[in-house]
Amino acid sequence: MALKTIKTNDVHIINLEKIVTGPQSILFKYEDLLAYDCDGFTIERHLPRAVVFPKDSQEVSKLVQYCAQNDLPFLARGAGTGLSGGAIPLNGEVIISLVRMKRLLEIDLENRLAVVEPGFVNLKLTNSISDKGYYYAPDPSSQYACTIGGNVAENAGGAHCLKYGVTTNHILGLEVVLPNGEIIEIGKNGIPDFPGYDLLGILTGSEGTLAIVTKITVRLLKNPEGKKTVLAYFDRVEDGSRAVSDIISTGIVPAALEMMDKTAIEGVESAAFPVGHPRDIEAVLLIEVDGILAGIDDQIDLILGVCKSRNVREVKVAKDEEERGRWWANRKTGFGAMGAISPDYLVQDGVIPRSKLPEVLRRINQISEESGLRIANIFHAGDGNLHPLVLFDSRKPGETEGAIKAGSQCLKVCAEFGGSITGEHGVGIEKKEEMRFIFNDDEIKAQTDIREVFNPNNLLNAGKLFPTPGRCVEVKKEMKNPVKSTYY
Amino acid sequence: MALKTIKTNDVHIINLEKIVTGPQSILFKYEDLLAYDCDGFTIERHLPRAVVFPKDSQEVSKLVQYCAQNDLPFLARGAGTGLSGGAIPLNGEVIISLVRMKRLLEIDLENRLAVVEPGFVNLKLTNSISDKGYYYAPDPSSQYACTIGGNVAENAGGAHCLKYGVTTNHILGLEVVLPNGEIIEIGKNGIPDFPGYDLLGILTGSEGTLAIVTKITVRLLKNPEGKKTVLAYFDRVEDGSRAVSDIISTGIVPAALEMMDKTAIEGVESAAFPVGHPRDIEAVLLIEVDGILAGIDDQIDLILGVCKSRNVREVKVAKDEEERGRWWANRKTGFGAMGAISPDYLVQDGVIPRSKLPEVLRRINQISEESGLRIANIFHAGDGNLHPLVLFDSRKPGETEGAIKAGSQCLKVCAEFGGSITGEHGVGIEKKEEMRFIFNDDEIKAQTDIREVFNPNNLLNAGKLFPTPGRCVEVKKEMKNPVKSTYY
Repeated sequence: MALKTIKTNDVHIINLEKIVTGPQSILFKYEDLLAYDCDGFTIERHLPRAVVFPKDSQEVSKLVQYCAQNDLPFLARGAGTGLSGGAIPLNGEVIISLVRMKRLLEIDLENRLAVVEPGFVNLKLTNSISDKGYYYAPDPSSQYACTIGGNVAENAGGAHCLKYGVTTNHILGLEVVLPNGEIIEIGKNGIPDFPGYDLLGILTGSEGTLAIVTKITVRLLKNPEGKKTVLAYFDRVEDGSRAVSDIISTGIVPAALEMMDKTAIEGVESAAFPVGHPRDIEAVLLIEVDGILAGIDDQIDLILGVCKSRNVREVKVAKDEEERGRWWANRKTGFGAMGAISPDYLVQDGVIPRSKLPEVLRRINQISEESGLRIANIFHAGDGNLHPLVLFDSRKPGETEGAIKAGSQCLKVCAEFGGSITGEHGVGIEKKEEMRFIFNDDEIKAQTDIREVFNPNNLLNAGKLFPTPGRCVEVKKEMKNPVKSTYY
Repeated sequence: MALKTIKTNDVHIINLEKIVTGPQSILFKYEDLLAYDCDGFTIERHLPRAVVFPKDSQEVSKLVQYCAQNDLPFLARGAGTGLSGGAIPLNGEVIISLVRMKRLLEIDLENRLAVVEPGFVNLKLTNSISDKGYYYAPDPSSQYACTIGGNVAENAGGAHCLKYGVTTNHILGLEVVLPNGEIIEIGKNGIPDFPGYDLLGILTGSEGTLAIVTKITVRLLKNPEGKKTVLAYFDRVEDGSRAVSDIISTGIVPAALEMMDKTAIEGVESAAFPVGHPRDIEAVLLIEVDGILAGIDDQIDLILGVCKSRNVREVKVAKDEEERGRWWANRKTGFGAMGAISPDYLVQDGVIPRSKLPEVLRRINQISEESGLRIANIFHAGDGNLHPLVLFDSRKPGETEGAIKAGSQCLKVCAEFGGSITGEHGVGIEKKEEMRFIFNDDEIKAQTDIREVFNPNNLLNAGKLFPTPGRCVEVKKEMKNPVKSTYY
């Protein structure tokens, strides 16, 4: 309420405030806006014009209509945990924060689905249904904080996506507000493979550039009867990589198949959740198998056999849920753990064909040597999704730029080996130029043409996801009305 | 060659013939075109202007460019097994047949993928790799004849899609020719979850209205270690339906969970592959479980237990691969088997939430009584994908219309129960008006706007998939240059 008494002469803020109801429905003071100048990608910062907190789809629709009618750039924001800058207000956008829209609207276990608002936190969903034997599969490392709306925008992945697929494989329906304010429903009642064009697919992972999601129907899975988790230590990273390919070749689809290299191990063992990994090995694999109890032991035996044939130094099975939990905490806090061994780090996110793992790791090593910056590797090895973590010190002149360059070089290597520049973190503003590594101008234009259909005035989250148009790409409309200095 | 000597004064045919190389590259005689006046949906027929047989993407691109430059309507055709009329030349289209583009271009077992041309027959892929222990999952009943290009267009399903998903879940990359003749690549090297908009998803299942697929990268799966198949006979259809829900509730995901009702049983037992189903039961379930051997017996025990608790009359496990094969042949030839008990039949394809099965079956029964037409039900019960088969005699006045109406009423019931009007057969021309059962005008417009991006002149496969614009939907461009009478 206090906030509302602050005076502003920005007529748009005054009007936007009338649309949203309830306390703390809008922020526009300079010091409040500072918290919204970036998301989990902290290298670039821009202040929004205001942050509004609608309570339902109708309010979102009215806000969007107002912005559209007044040529105000706008974008949606969830928990702000995104790692590629998708929620950064590049053009002084009005940020439509969805954190007040956080209700769990429906659980239908018979048809295995739940309906949530976009601000509902990922992990809360599983916590709401685990006593009944169900869970929601996509599990990004930030799942304790990130919202399902944000997960849809980024098509978020997670450690267990090897077996269960990423967010797009678990979304059954959406209600969205289009950039003209219209509310439409896409996919209904959890019916899979709806006819017509796959709007569900195109919106999922569109990084907030096509529409604002206001309601989400997700698929729920039954808890597996059992799970077992293996840690395997390899003296040579090559052996670890080969073991990954060999495990997949057996026909087993592990629920998760994670790898960390020596530098990553140094980080996680120096941070909050050490588990006693030896410091002198080159690779640790964390392998989890789940399913029907009767089958699990056979799969574990096969996996242990593969590790031995690849010269594993030591391999062990978690003896209980507590040990399993500690191993996972060690892995899932891995990015942040780099803070223990480096003042700053930049996380990259590339994908390669699994068979190229050893070669690509060698190339990343070369990039590290050439840049003079250490690179830790923590990754979803099973699906070839690498996370090179470039360690640097932003206080040292040139190191930030060096880290950004090294990160980009890692992505270039991924693209050269037939891979992709992002597996789960999105493109945002961070990697939009790197899109050229994998798409030619025609291929980019086919996509920006689609953006134009949804978002013809380019007011919604402009300047994200695609490279700045070059010579051969049709020049897109200039951003309208970007305002950067109306703060009080 | 003989064909090429036939004279025509249609300058477009003369020019198209110059683009395609090799023998039998074009058909344009009336009697040849008759074979292309419909596909598996035989109720409506239109003659194409010509049928051309390009040998590669370049020829497809040139044909498309020619058609685009000369305002000639065109469409692509695979094996012509589609059930909703998607390949019918409504506007006297030039048909671009892809049957000569049928090469298996690459098999990469290490990365579990294959690259095929669109005319490659579905079942041939599995046959090419089964000796190495792999298979391609989507298995429409027409898989011995249908092409993978057609499967992509229709997002084809099949009996085993309950566990493994439909075509869109197995497509890793496409090369397509856009309606302006440009060739673009979508998804590359089998890397899943490529950044940018999900063009792969939007093209898959777009029923040939957005682009022509010229190359397809598909995911291969490792053969399960074992599989077991169960037949269960129920006196009451209600018990069979409840058993379906109960099986899913156990947490088991069967590879397939099929159901046939009494009329369907009469059909399959009167046709080429009878297996001795009792004629006096109301429902038979065909249930298949696959995976790791150790787990299968436990799952079968659970399934047998569920069937018994739902008053099953008899339940048995296939004793060998031969018996399993006979059971599947009986089921997979089920549609055609209706020919043994009815001069004509119309197959419908609706989806409902699984929990609504008993109620929806009762409503379909009412529709049968009211129409005076028998309706057999053969369906993928596990995912709620119904196939009501309306039996009729086209020689009796009014019965064809009555069957079409009854089929449409079945779809309306599916929509009323929160379902969809097609699970796997597509919309085509057959169900385009029924799209209104599940989409409002805004939702249809969001889709036709996308078609406009890809296909701005509406020359590619016009008049399919979406209802004829009504009052509230913006009137689309009129078809240009539809020619229906240039045959020699």
